[in-house]
Amino acid sequence: MKRIMLRVSYDGTDYCGWQKQSNGLAVEEALNRAISELTGTDIFVAGASRTDAGVHALGNVAVFDTDSPIPADKFSFALNQRLPSDIAVQESCEVEPDFHPRYCECVKTYEYRIYNGIHRNPLYSRFTYHFHHPLDVRLMNEAARYLTGEHDFASFCSAGAQVKNTVRTIYDAAVESLSLAEISPDTQLITIRLRGNGFLYNMVRIIAGTLIRAGQGEFAPEHMSRIIDAADRSAAGPTAPPQGLTLMKIEY
Amino acid sequence: MKRIMLRVSYDGTDYCGWQKQSNGLAVEEALNRAISELTGTDIFVAGASRTDAGVHALGNVAVFDTDSPIPADKFSFALNQRLPSDIAVQESCEVEPDFHPRYCECVKTYEYRIYNGIHRNPLYSRFTYHFHHPLDVRLMNEAARYLTGEHDFASFCSAGAQVKNTVRTIYDAAVESLSLAEISPDTQLITIRLRGNGFLYNMVRIIAGTLIRAGQGEFAPEHMSRIIDAADRSAAGPTAPPQGLTLMKIEY
Repeated sequence: MKRIMLRVSYDGTDYCGWQKQSNGLAVEEALNRAISELTGTDIFVAGASRTDAGVHALGNVAVFDTDSPIPADKFSFALNQRLPSDIAVQESCEVEPDFHPRYCECVKTYEYRIYNGIHRNPLYSRFTYHFHHPLDVRLMNEAARYLTGEHDFASFCSAGAQVKNTVRTIYDAAVESLSLAEISPDTQLITIRLRGNGFLYNMVRIIAGTLIRAGQGEFAPEHMSRIIDAADRSAAGPTAPPQGLTLMKIEY
Repeated sequence: MKRIMLRVSYDGTDYCGWQKQSNGLAVEEALNRAISELTGTDIFVAGASRTDAGVHALGNVAVFDTDSPIPADKFSFALNQRLPSDIAVQESCEVEPDFHPRYCECVKTYEYRIYNGIHRNPLYSRFTYHFHHPLDVRLMNEAARYLTGEHDFASFCSAGAQVKNTVRTIYDAAVESLSLAEISPDTQLITIRLRGNGFLYNMVRIIAGTLIRAGQGEFAPEHMSRIIDAADRSAAGPTAPPQGLTLMKIEY
């Protein structure tokens, strides 16, 4: 018996999220099916991050145990033949039998992308949130800097989450703009990039919704520390929609 | 009666191309429907570039004539409410009654994108061609430079095209690479960018297929001038698939 780790990319548009739900197909179900077909035994993967419905991943991580004679590094090729076109394995390798992607310490990188222009754009709509009011990226980036370090992020955790300890560490928080002058002088693709040791339920999307308010000038960047200190969900901005969010990578 | 010009973005994945065909819905049909509904009269747009099935556009151009009292610059907003999610108007304005997007002189910019990595990637598959063998972008860029200037591009025109004059001018031809190190050290997004006064049938896709061969080292970059001089379709490489191609903009 060996434990195989997969790094998985997916377009989350048509999934109910990573985890099995009553409504629609989950990414882990599609993986379970493909691996079970390939190995001829029932396989259930354990994932690192249970991304929500509509959220994408460039590199989520999953493991499973198998007696299959297929070499660990060949699973990626064999699975990509069987997986639907919106899911693909980027890497497969053997890991220690006690490695668990959810309970081992790791650093996660998320990106939240905003298409900031007057009209919606079908070349960007799948992987961005269309926000049509002007946004000042300099203000957003200044506000984001207050997020770095160890903080109680309770203000950025959806009500109803069952986690008790809401303290997390963010190592990097940056907001960048790419001009899309070919569309119009004011159109830009804004990327919020966060790197941390863990994220609470909806935390990146609430941070995105809050930074959008900062970018509209609704509060000064330094007010961000008060929002954090409040440790109260109502102090932060709205939860930005899922399609802008991509789990970029998980480092162990 | 006034003539309205539209700049139109579309994800070409689910269309049979710009122009009406027997197989499937055309982009111009979707536009005709939306404008006809909005104005209450039958409208048929005239497009600048009849992109092929599966080809995308950031800024194709179309015109139509109307007596509608809707202000020219408001058509974009009104049409985006009615168009399917994979088509959107980025700008609408009034133009001279004799302006025709296909017959007026213009400069077109195309981009052909290649996802160069071992495994397919669902976050890129819609707008790139997945090519899994290694490509040397420096060689591709050197080969591309031979394309600039006025040439007979008959080698880069699909057989069966009815055009007589195959001389065109390319002002800029460049190949750039963006490292996608988050996926793997060797994965890259390659963009071939061409700007010219006109393009023959399948010309950009044949250029892309030829530059891919240059990037594999199948011929030296300077051999590109011989391929041009041959004025023979069989001298060039294969026609690269449509999903990598995007019509970026048309300048009049």
